Amino acid sequence: MQNEIAIELAGDGKQPVFLEIATSIIREIERGRLKPGDALPGTRALASSLKVHRNTVDAAFHELTMQGWLVAKPSRGTFVASDLPDVRSANRRTRSRSGEGRLRTGKAAPPLLHVSDGSPDPREMPRAALARAFRRALSTPAFLANGSYGDPRGAISLRTALADYLVQDRGLPVSPDEVLVTRGSQMGLFLAATAILEPGQTIAVEEPGYPLAWAAFRAARARVVGVPVDAQGIDVSKLAALAEREPTLKAIYVTPHHQYPTTVTLGAGRRLKLLDLARRYRLTIIEDDYDHEYRFEGRPILPLAARTDADGSTIYIGSLSKLLAPAVRVGYAVASPEILTRMVDRREAIDRQGDLPLEQALANLIEEGELRRHARKARRIYAARRDFLANEIHRGLGDDVVFNMPAGGLAIWLRLSAGLNAETWSSNAARAGLSIAPGLRFALDAANATQAFRIGYANLDESDLKRVIAILIRTRPRR
Amino acid sequence: MQNEIAIELAGDGKQPVFLEIATSIIREIERGRLKPGDALPGTRALASSLKVHRNTVDAAFHELTMQGWLVAKPSRGTFVASDLPDVRSANRRTRSRSGEGRLRTGKAAPPLLHVSDGSPDPREMPRAALARAFRRALSTPAFLANGSYGDPRGAISLRTALADYLVQDRGLPVSPDEVLVTRGSQMGLFLAATAILEPGQTIAVEEPGYPLAWAAFRAARARVVGVPVDAQGIDVSKLAALAEREPTLKAIYVTPHHQYPTTVTLGAGRRLKLLDLARRYRLTIIEDDYDHEYRFEGRPILPLAARTDADGSTIYIGSLSKLLAPAVRVGYAVASPEILTRMVDRREAIDRQGDLPLEQALANLIEEGELRRHARKARRIYAARRDFLANEIHRGLGDDVVFNMPAGGLAIWLRLSAGLNAETWSSNAARAGLSIAPGLRFALDAANATQAFRIGYANLDESDLKRVIAILIRTRPRR
Repeated sequence: MQNEIAIELAGDGKQPVFLEIATSIIREIERGRLKPGDALPGTRALASSLKVHRNTVDAAFHELTMQGWLVAKPSRGTFVASDLPDVRSANRRTRSRSGEGRLRTGKAAPPLLHVSDGSPDPREMPRAALARAFRRALSTPAFLANGSYGDPRGAISLRTALADYLVQDRGLPVSPDEVLVTRGSQMGLFLAATAILEPGQTIAVEEPGYPLAWAAFRAARARVVGVPVDAQGIDVSKLAALAEREPTLKAIYVTPHHQYPTTVTLGAGRRLKLLDLARRYRLTIIEDDYDHEYRFEGRPILPLAARTDADGSTIYIGSLSKLLAPAVRVGYAVASPEILTRMVDRREAIDRQGDLPLEQALANLIEEGELRRHARKARRIYAARRDFLANEIHRGLGDDVVFNMPAGGLAIWLRLSAGLNAETWSSNAARAGLSIAPGLRFALDAANATQAFRIGYANLDESDLKRVIAILIRTRPRR
Repeated sequence: MQNEIAIELAGDGKQPVFLEIATSIIREIERGRLKPGDALPGTRALASSLKVHRNTVDAAFHELTMQGWLVAKPSRGTFVASDLPDVRSANRRTRSRSGEGRLRTGKAAPPLLHVSDGSPDPREMPRAALARAFRRALSTPAFLANGSYGDPRGAISLRTALADYLVQDRGLPVSPDEVLVTRGSQMGLFLAATAILEPGQTIAVEEPGYPLAWAAFRAARARVVGVPVDAQGIDVSKLAALAEREPTLKAIYVTPHHQYPTTVTLGAGRRLKLLDLARRYRLTIIEDDYDHEYRFEGRPILPLAARTDADGSTIYIGSLSKLLAPAVRVGYAVASPEILTRMVDRREAIDRQGDLPLEQALANLIEEGELRRHARKARRIYAARRDFLANEIHRGLGDDVVFNMPAGGLAIWLRLSAGLNAETWSSNAARAGLSIAPGLRFALDAANATQAFRIGYANLDESDLKRVIAILIRTRPRR
């Protein structure tokens, strides 16, 4: 039996039609007119009654299915989920973050509380300034005159602004010609790997580490081998042993400032040893300094790339996405002219060039000091959230976990006490509406998985952080 | 001897500092205070006197060198060029296009007239609407709530809008789940090749053809083999012979709507034969429909992908960059679920996801009908430019060239009469301030180079088109 559902399309043009439909359906569920297990009308019939394209209804159903409101049963139809997410008033102001799968309407409550791996809070970024700069960029002669394609290295204005920024803030002696603007650090990692590795050659990575970096290196057909991380960062003596026995080892990927996922800072002695090792075995270091600005104790540590001699053995990767928002995708790479040329050639082949208006707008934000001002503000907000979260963990989970207060970065690495299993805990939490990734997610070899959680706190406000810990307490597995 | 130059930095914040410096230097040249051959101060000294970073001066010099105002002589310094570009009044309103190497200030005249390969005119795009939509996108819950990363396939709103558009305007029976939003068609081509070709396998391409597509396929480690194009498009019988003798042939890349660079439309008979051939030899067709909207005679021809059976043998690639501006980088790919999944995985590894605000903004332009309105307007403007250019060519170069009036697309393919060499002509033209690519640029094998020019007319207004032909007449080589 199908239900009659009353879908009203406000049609105020403020949101896409498929979202209006999705919002209406949620409202019907919240009012109780659609009940768990109820069948929805077919997409064809609904599209015809609403006078919209069937794709639009498909998109609405897809959105709601992803969020857990609906369930699609092959060759039977679409139904209201029987284990509905937390049904709330549609009028409640939705301030809480949830990330993926969140309904994009502002009218419905999030079904899930999503713990990121260390994302910034898009609500805090200088949105008005970016929108203004973007509008201006669309009216500059640079854009209007550009009837042809531009420089695959990125807009000269942005490369200049970034070079100035890197000289002043990070001690990197770079000129605009040594900077390649990428779409985000992800593209920088892929381009770096294709520039320095032949298919089948080996790159060493930190374990636990960053799975999307491994994916980038594998896409470049490299072999990825893990080297353990301890409280001082990557174990350089184990790396030395690997270099000695593995002739195809050509590169090493590190996150020395705030190791991903453990947040530890690579110690000074290890840094020197790593640079020395790289020289000795002619390894290229790919240094991923993804959240440099977020240093809460003392000043940021200078990158390895700032200490590298002119032998060009380091490719330095950075990102503005961690400063602004994950969905604003601009990163950069700094490398020797020889390596950079190869990266630029490959970039042109896979992506031609970046968005000129966005690049110009970001150059503007840097030149006007807006980015530095924002970094200062964000540091203050995120430090307070870190402290709040640490306190909540101490109070609520003191016996179950251990962690070191991170000196920087946007996450806390929570190791579980003996007998607690992170995957079990994560599954329990998911059933209670909390999405949090267990340590297994960061393991190159599942056998090495750490019993831990990485809790990104920057995009969660205090009430959300409270909820995260409350759900973790409630869903803790028995030892 | 170095000159004293008076550089005034207006400092109104309307343009980057390096461009203010560049503009000042041009003004000094135009006033005659800097003469051809004069040495400029060192960048270090100039930076110190202007109290800016040396990188900023470097960027200004670099910009002016690229434009031909300055010449850098290794270990001697930087000099005013002795063969200066056309020096004009700095007050002249710069309406003319020049593309690459154009100074981005609005104050100086373009040193070069640049003929594109078929770019649209960014002055005509709906800039205010895009800026508004971008600003709105930064304030939607979709963006604010997205503390995590998004879907590597692109924003659901844009995939839905594109699917609707492709169903209605191009007869492609697609749902949002079959659409992958890419950065531009370039990324679509690379991802397509990695999804269907193992390293060393062969893809057939049109010759003459599109070199950046070949670069994308080679970046995917494919072998690229040319098949000749004639007045009906790609020669399918030669393709059949290749398929018969080459067991590693797995794919064929075509631009059937307006062949690049010759602009011919693939004939109906050939289309059927091509589809049949692809089925018979299990070849995947990569169909690049890069400027579908620009059809001036009759209605656009339906894509091959609209006729393909559900056997999933076509990957359809499109772009919004040709509708808006080359520097606004959004394209899309449509493929079977199996191929699309591989493309999405690879996309995540090399680029994670697109810019959510830009994607949302473009979805908005499509939903509001702005993109269709713009396409109609652009078609009218560009058709008039095509007719104007054709007339100019007839009047000024009638004996030297032949061409077929293109039924669509944004370029005229000008074949030279016997005895005229396109490379010589192109070099002569460059010395007279006109940048135009000879047929050699589009040849896979230099031995097959056509004596021809591709003249993109859409981003040139009538006075510029007149200048292009006037310079070509003036610089025509002797037969």
